[in-house]
Amino acid sequence: MNSFGRLFRVHIFGESHGECVGITIDGCPAGLLLSPEDLLEDLERRKGGKQKGATPRQEEDYPIFKSGVFNGTTTGFPITILFENKNTRSEDYNKQRSIPRPGHADWVAHEKFGGNEDYRGGGHFSARLTTGIVAAGAIAKKLMPQITIAAAVTSIAGETDLEKGLQKGIDAKDSVGGIIECKAIGLPVGLGEPYFDSVESVLSHILFAIPAVRGVEFGTGFAAANMFGSQHNDAIENAEGTTKTNHAGGVVGGISNGNQLVFRLAVKPTSSTPKQQNSLNWETGSTEDFSIKGRHDLCVALRAPVIVEAVTALVLADFMLVQQHIKRVIV
Amino acid sequence: MNSFGRLFRVHIFGESHGECVGITIDGCPAGLLLSPEDLLEDLERRKGGKQKGATPRQEEDYPIFKSGVFNGTTTGFPITILFENKNTRSEDYNKQRSIPRPGHADWVAHEKFGGNEDYRGGGHFSARLTTGIVAAGAIAKKLMPQITIAAAVTSIAGETDLEKGLQKGIDAKDSVGGIIECKAIGLPVGLGEPYFDSVESVLSHILFAIPAVRGVEFGTGFAAANMFGSQHNDAIENAEGTTKTNHAGGVVGGISNGNQLVFRLAVKPTSSTPKQQNSLNWETGSTEDFSIKGRHDLCVALRAPVIVEAVTALVLADFMLVQQHIKRVIV
Amino acid sequence: MNSFGRLFRVHIFGESHGECVGITIDGCPAGLLLSPEDLLEDLERRKGGKQKGATPRQEEDYPIFKSGVFNGTTTGFPITILFENKNTRSEDYNKQRSIPRPGHADWVAHEKFGGNEDYRGGGHFSARLTTGIVAAGAIAKKLMPQITIAAAVTSIAGETDLEKGLQKGIDAKDSVGGIIECKAIGLPVGLGEPYFDSVESVLSHILFAIPAVRGVEFGTGFAAANMFGSQHNDAIENAEGTTKTNHAGGVVGGISNGNQLVFRLAVKPTSSTPKQQNSLNWETGSTEDFSIKGRHDLCVALRAPVIVEAVTALVLADFMLVQQHIKRVIV
Amino acid sequence: MNSFGRLFRVHIFGESHGECVGITIDGCPAGLLLSPEDLLEDLERRKGGKQKGATPRQEEDYPIFKSGVFNGTTTGFPITILFENKNTRSEDYNKQRSIPRPGHADWVAHEKFGGNEDYRGGGHFSARLTTGIVAAGAIAKKLMPQITIAAAVTSIAGETDLEKGLQKGIDAKDSVGGIIECKAIGLPVGLGEPYFDSVESVLSHILFAIPAVRGVEFGTGFAAANMFGSQHNDAIENAEGTTKTNHAGGVVGGISNGNQLVFRLAVKPTSSTPKQQNSLNWETGSTEDFSIKGRHDLCVALRAPVIVEAVTALVLADFMLVQQHIKRVIV
Repeated sequence: MNSFGRLFRVHIFGESHGECVGITIDGCPAGLLLSPEDLLEDLERRKGGKQKGATPRQEEDYPIFKSGVFNGTTTGFPITILFENKNTRSEDYNKQRSIPRPGHADWVAHEKFGGNEDYRGGGHFSARLTTGIVAAGAIAKKLMPQITIAAAVTSIAGETDLEKGLQKGIDAKDSVGGIIECKAIGLPVGLGEPYFDSVESVLSHILFAIPAVRGVEFGTGFAAANMFGSQHNDAIENAEGTTKTNHAGGVVGGISNGNQLVFRLAVKPTSSTPKQQNSLNWETGSTEDFSIKGRHDLCVALRAPVIVEAVTALVLADFMLVQQHIKRVIV
Repeated sequence: MNSFGRLFRVHIFGESHGECVGITIDGCPAGLLLSPEDLLEDLERRKGGKQKGATPRQEEDYPIFKSGVFNGTTTGFPITILFENKNTRSEDYNKQRSIPRPGHADWVAHEKFGGNEDYRGGGHFSARLTTGIVAAGAIAKKLMPQITIAAAVTSIAGETDLEKGLQKGIDAKDSVGGIIECKAIGLPVGLGEPYFDSVESVLSHILFAIPAVRGVEFGTGFAAANMFGSQHNDAIENAEGTTKTNHAGGVVGGISNGNQLVFRLAVKPTSSTPKQQNSLNWETGSTEDFSIKGRHDLCVALRAPVIVEAVTALVLADFMLVQQHIKRVIV
Repeated sequence: MNSFGRLFRVHIFGESHGECVGITIDGCPAGLLLSPEDLLEDLERRKGGKQKGATPRQEEDYPIFKSGVFNGTTTGFPITILFENKNTRSEDYNKQRSIPRPGHADWVAHEKFGGNEDYRGGGHFSARLTTGIVAAGAIAKKLMPQITIAAAVTSIAGETDLEKGLQKGIDAKDSVGGIIECKAIGLPVGLGEPYFDSVESVLSHILFAIPAVRGVEFGTGFAAANMFGSQHNDAIENAEGTTKTNHAGGVVGGISNGNQLVFRLAVKPTSSTPKQQNSLNWETGSTEDFSIKGRHDLCVALRAPVIVEAVTALVLADFMLVQQHIKRVIV
Repeated sequence: MNSFGRLFRVHIFGESHGECVGITIDGCPAGLLLSPEDLLEDLERRKGGKQKGATPRQEEDYPIFKSGVFNGTTTGFPITILFENKNTRSEDYNKQRSIPRPGHADWVAHEKFGGNEDYRGGGHFSARLTTGIVAAGAIAKKLMPQITIAAAVTSIAGETDLEKGLQKGIDAKDSVGGIIECKAIGLPVGLGEPYFDSVESVLSHILFAIPAVRGVEFGTGFAAANMFGSQHNDAIENAEGTTKTNHAGGVVGGISNGNQLVFRLAVKPTSSTPKQQNSLNWETGSTEDFSIKGRHDLCVALRAPVIVEAVTALVLADFMLVQQHIKRVIV
């Protein structure tokens, strides 16, 4: 349910406006040098405060290690990391509880959990849960120095000039979406399996776990549907498996082929738009106009690249352990 | 590895040119009336023989029940179904073993499995493995008469007139790709979870397990990245959760919202194109031109809709069991 | 690795002398009234301070809820509970690190984790990890008011008069073991499956996870090996499945039969005996005599009944969810 | 449900009097030489026909490989093995369907599966399902030539002279139980984990999956409960971890310590005793006397050692893969 992975496993917990959010990482090899500071760069990237178009909420996302690290080194046992929630203004949310915000999980959560959900700031649905995921991803990256993962926003509101895309949203007093591309190099040949454990299957599973992701494509992706086979096929050129083109995005038959892993994601516009909206009031039974107050991202895609990198690192670390490319004890 | 599902689980096995392909379905409730004939309609749809653009190989895909059904009823125990392989011409493949076909798994399989792979017709990588998946999907559909799942090809080679798209491939003496759209109605509110067990996560996991799928998008999908929040948000209109629009495609916060489930997939052009290609010969170490003989689909997307429906049914049956919408004994 | 369960899942973490130990419970239905106080009675039973024969270390085992409970009710999301470690004297352990204590995991941990293990007080191997398990068990018990689980020590050092058994250890200046019996009533017919998910399989799995358990038997157990079939068979008397005798201990063919669930465990004597012992010093390479200081239980079996009840409750709650005897939302 | 293992996984299926029983083994490394003949010795041991005290039913347990082996070598993909059911006399069972046999799963199966169970010969509950397990175990043994596993019956009906024990049953015209001891040498240090993945946990899980097993103990087992700590502790003598005694049975803190793995199981007397018994007739609602016809083992413990070895091999192969002591491709 809130777990992911086979040998390198993560479990997430927490709520946006509860005491904390956190993650437990199980199966991390022993002997990895690890300090909270190792995670700060990625955690900083996830925070939106410094970017135009990201929420001004200044979370102090300092990772508090509760287990699994001893004398600055991983022990091989579960690493639990907490992030305390501060600077939360729950009252922003309490007022309008009975009016589910369109695009948010308010209504489905209310139905599914019988009204017991922690509705403040989205509760467990909040993107704040990705804090732990980013921390775990930073650890996974440290485990695989031979692999480089880099994700970036490639367009906002349909504009490859990102400033221009954001300005579109500002001008319209609305929120905007974007496209993210992620590339990874250094993967060995042979990660993944055909069918249910294909690299695309496992990666897309966790990519769609990122809030607001609406599409995932590998290599040439949707454009491949319009190509001829002779155009799309990547000719193998040498014994390392290097291909002339890389329409496959580094995965063939579900298995990494040693070329660059490439995939893209569509991120929808932030559901919390400043615009006036209309929704059902489940107490009165009638629909009414309302607008969302509080601090929200103009474009959630801006914060997502480091989350995309993190989940990619989690998946690769797990595959690397299964294929025995990472040792169970780092020496 | 070759298993999928939590309470309604499938395990696949077999090779394209071995004795058989098959599937075991574990966790199917007891008491479901079930005969091989119940599976034939979907199995027939998966076969390509009758469609223009699909391979002329006439497989006799008759499901042989080996366990789990007694007196025409499921027993609650694993249902194993075999499909014998007949009408295979392995010699087509033996000749060119050392020249990995571009777009196929030949090279990665050889590297990953140390040369032990069954290379005939793609072995375990073959789309023939989807026969069992379609059979399991037909059983899952029978379990959920209240849900209707329908997938269809919506474009081929970029043309929404499908005949025109196929003709493009025929004219170019090349293979072509396509787009498939799947819709499902009758889902209860509340299937899925935020994060790792989101409907999108679990569905995309198994959708990308289908050979040749390169992209998956839900609702408005990639187009959502270009929209404003106020455009994309679906306003809730009534106590059943009906929304005015359905840009979300029936899933919000990872959870079904009772509206129509909608998603699309990109299917790449068949890797086995009639065109001459170039690849490494791993015995000689040099690249050489070659062309693929044998019987192959002009457009694999044509066969895929019933497979898409099947995996969708597997995912929904599993979620329905977890959420207790399906009883463990059907009476 | 550190997870257990299918739908009602627990994940444990922490070390004896680190910051805390804790547990995350995933899959607990929403709507269960829950406060830290609900857990105190069982947590108190687990603490040894008040019993003769249990360690005088007074842990303040107050459960700190970090997630998953809102307004005094479970939300359906992961419940993370921490127990802070106080009153630890690590220096007791540091002195003799290179002399692995017989019966303890010191040596295997050192070998397996390459010297990176947190060796203080047994680290993650410590029975202190059972604190979280007892907390989770208390929650599982609350979910199943219809089921009563009761475990008790039935013999110590071979004596059914428990005081006498403890006195044996005190007189010998040594530690002693014991036998625990657990009974549960109120189980519905039909929990468990034949083979891998048999009630005995899943229960024994987690019973052997309790430190110091060396044997598990169901019903008549080992004595059954000496009986005739006609003696051991339990005759079914009525439509509820009540049996005349209960040699099976409530499980037939891996499935609960509605009679009382009965099983017993053997708990070895505490490894930390006050007696002088002999072990290898892995730094010097020679064996040497030493004795263990610090606070330790004379008989760990005394603390175990509540742990046995807890793990039984975890297993039953999971089976009850799978068999749909517990609803996903408590109303 | 009918699956076991993490990286080396098995899935069982089939019924005693259906078409076949079988197993799928997923995760077996590629490159292992394997033929049906490799399995015959163990399969022969499982068959009872040649032993005094075992059923005269002569099953032709020839393993039919359906997938996963190519050119005499494992491919790395699922290995499905079938055993056809022949020589079955279903009419023996049909007559008395409404009178559940004491000690058998007839009644619980009927209740749990709503009357849809295949009741012939115990259906999926039959010990015939262990045929596949023995086959998989033989493959696991082949993967680990460095490990030797040997199980044997050590007492029957309380007699260590086994002939004498069997004669007790023959004289009493009743069935008898027995004790099995299993030993394994060659295990590396470091298999298993503390808590839920302890060697004892995982082993006992699958040992209790064997029909008729009622107790499992490791090392000194239940007798440990009567010992002093100074007696039970095994002093470590050298850098290989060799201990002076082996009361622990080769596992400390859940982890293998390099000494001999030792455990014992209690097997109940065969439920199908020739003696007249009493049970409920669920059609008439009254209890009645009856006796069991058909062919049955006097003592099922006699057939069990090879099954015990098989499940031990499955567990060890899985741990060996997790700990990277077995390569994913055998060369």
